[in-house]
Amino acid sequence: VATAYERLTAAAKQDLAGDAVSTALEKLVGLALTFLKTCKRTPLTSNVVGKSYFAFQPPRESGKLSRPVNDNLFSADLTERHLGRVVRGDLSALDAAKRAKVLYSTAMSYCAATDLLKEGDKKTPGTFFECLVGHLVAKSFGVNPKTAIEVLNLDLRTNLPTDYVFDLGAGRNKIHLPIKTSTRERVVQVWAHQRVLDGVYGMNRFRGLLVCLTETNMQRQTLSVVEVCLPDQWVLYQMFISQLHRVYYFDPPAKYASLATRYPFIQVKPFAAFFDEIEVLATAAPLA
Amino acid sequence: VATAYERLTAAAKQDLAGDAVSTALEKLVGLALTFLKTCKRTPLTSNVVGKSYFAFQPPRESGKLSRPVNDNLFSADLTERHLGRVVRGDLSALDAAKRAKVLYSTAMSYCAATDLLKEGDKKTPGTFFECLVGHLVAKSFGVNPKTAIEVLNLDLRTNLPTDYVFDLGAGRNKIHLPIKTSTRERVVQVWAHQRVLDGVYGMNRFRGLLVCLTETNMQRQTLSVVEVCLPDQWVLYQMFISQLHRVYYFDPPAKYASLATRYPFIQVKPFAAFFDEIEVLATAAPLA
Repeated sequence: VATAYERLTAAAKQDLAGDAVSTALEKLVGLALTFLKTCKRTPLTSNVVGKSYFAFQPPRESGKLSRPVNDNLFSADLTERHLGRVVRGDLSALDAAKRAKVLYSTAMSYCAATDLLKEGDKKTPGTFFECLVGHLVAKSFGVNPKTAIEVLNLDLRTNLPTDYVFDLGAGRNKIHLPIKTSTRERVVQVWAHQRVLDGVYGMNRFRGLLVCLTETNMQRQTLSVVEVCLPDQWVLYQMFISQLHRVYYFDPPAKYASLATRYPFIQVKPFAAFFDEIEVLATAAPLA
Repeated sequence: VATAYERLTAAAKQDLAGDAVSTALEKLVGLALTFLKTCKRTPLTSNVVGKSYFAFQPPRESGKLSRPVNDNLFSADLTERHLGRVVRGDLSALDAAKRAKVLYSTAMSYCAATDLLKEGDKKTPGTFFECLVGHLVAKSFGVNPKTAIEVLNLDLRTNLPTDYVFDLGAGRNKIHLPIKTSTRERVVQVWAHQRVLDGVYGMNRFRGLLVCLTETNMQRQTLSVVEVCLPDQWVLYQMFISQLHRVYYFDPPAKYASLATRYPFIQVKPFAAFFDEIEVLATAAPLA
């Protein structure tokens, strides 16, 4: 797994949209799923309405538990069957429910496996998730992102480090793609960076697409799961800092999904829906 | 030290400006300074022009090192002599150079001692620093802060959790006081929260005062110290997100201090200067 991870990050640095990344993802996720199939599952108490969770346990007893895994979204078998196409962003053969499952299981595989195989490693699951999402989005738009952009503003000339940004070419939108396994209080950074892009390059120039895995949090003592959501704060950020165009989740929390239907209408959707609106997102147009 | 720390945080929760916090700070800082006097000092290689640093080592060899301490700003003897007045915010007997020293040594005492006495404890030094700065500012303004404010905005009614905010009363400014031992990439949050306050309550209603300890970073292998500063990014945040009114440092990095003299003129100052401008900061007035 460690070698496959190194190959993935090296390939992603070279050419994020490239075939070598697809191959490395297929290998790494395959290994993680194979390992997870040997693991036991501990049911968790769900305090999230309509969702149930388990945690993986290593094959040999060790007291370790993975992060919570959504029971209805995780399917190793289904994912193994479609993995080759999924890591290439080809979801056309799958209906919405299956898309959600294979995407979630693909993303969760390495994260849950790492929880069991390594000690306190929070960094590599985040990097893996960034490679996965970045790869799928880059393949979908047919262009690689940058992680810094030039600022020229009167007497100011500097480079602004950013999350992934995509230039889709003349007459098309530019894309700002922050990626987080979960958000918590750090999420205000996303709106703040979007605002800097709006300020430097003009309003409605960069479409901000935030992609998140989940907002679950496990209480170790009670083996219970909650979703940590701050929808009122998101409303204030969307009203007063900047406007994100989409927020995609691999496992959408209901509290955020419902923001799509009330002012200021933050469009929170399953990540599977991204693949149906690539062209809409790319096309420069006035906001609806 | 652990008991004195508990007493401080309990007192701070009750009445941040109160005498019990002064007493608890005096006790805790006194203990930390006494301990540090028994410690050895390892000189560090400074890669910061004009500053030299050392790290404390425990009395008995253990391989542990404290965070870097600025040689010219740390004086246990001077600080012990004036500690009773310093923790009460009474710096009138001291000239600017001595103020800077006693403030820095007071703040650094518990942080450096904790680096040696505890394992990987990043939380309590941050909380201690927040209590110290919050206490001195609350005493100076003669009012306790809140950490959440009510938002009423047409059909929106919610509570926004914030850093310390002070209501100085009718006809006077309100104060937004984020406090960080160091900033790094998280600092954009400060400008973002200031922008939400501007949006909800109106421009120039809350004066944003950011207070930081230092921006030093130590390379363990080479025992060398750098200051991690991103002045160009601060310029973009101040231009495009919101305007901070002051940034105070206990150990001001030259790269940030120089921002005060060029557009957009971010007013970075030593924290000692705060005590000379309390009335100016409190008085509602158009921005100069």
